[in-house]
Amino acid sequence: MTAIAATSEQLALVKYDDHGLVAAIAQDLDGVVLMMAWMNAETLRMTLDEGLMVYWSRSRQEVWRKGDTSGDHQVVHEAFYDCDADVLLFKVDQQGRGACHTGRYSCFHRRFGNDADQPQ
Amino acid sequence: MTAIAATSEQLALVKYDDHGLVAAIAQDLDGVVLMMAWMNAETLRMTLDEGLMVYWSRSRQEVWRKGDTSGDHQVVHEAFYDCDADVLLFKVDQQGRGACHTGRYSCFHRRFGNDADQPQ
Repeated sequence: MTAIAATSEQLALVKYDDHGLVAAIAQDLDGVVLMMAWMNAETLRMTLDEGLMVYWSRSRQEVWRKGDTSGDHQVVHEAFYDCDADVLLFKVDQQGRGACHTGRYSCFHRRFGNDADQPQ
Repeated sequence: MTAIAATSEQLALVKYDDHGLVAAIAQDLDGVVLMMAWMNAETLRMTLDEGLMVYWSRSRQEVWRKGDTSGDHQVVHEAFYDCDADVLLFKVDQQGRGACHTGRYSCFHRRFGNDADQPQ
């Protein structure tokens, strides 16, 4: 794992919502969108420092280092922020079987339409 | 443009936040993540019916059919919902010069690190 040396100016740009959270999209190195979850300032800093995706669990209200229980860590290769600095995008190497708690590789495995539940 | 025939059961699954909104990620057909914005139930229905991305503008509090002023429409090819049904992912054909109001193709053109502002 390699830390990402975000500058303090970059970190100061990030806009958090009323709950102190910012949306974080994880995309694998082949371009597959794996999941979207949330980070606060602390877990964004941990993610960049550790080079592993660390979210904030809204349901459990606690730090959620992805893969600590499942082994499905997400190793960060690059990190981007959008033009409004209120959405983050991480290019990650997905470890283990995948990102989704259902056992699927991507959380976006259900498609609108009559042929629902197609694997992505 | 082609409508996407989402079933009423699928639409009923979608979970909206306290503001009646759900996050919508647009990804192009080559895998580039273009932007993330928000939809309400009405603009999700419009998006699926029209086959064009229609967001809800939080800043303007109005329906935002992407590209109506810029020409940068996003033609929907596939639409997915995640395992919690609280994030949507759309595979789109980006028209015009790109998704970002800055003129860049993707809104995620700024990278954390010392080499910031790299095009994606």
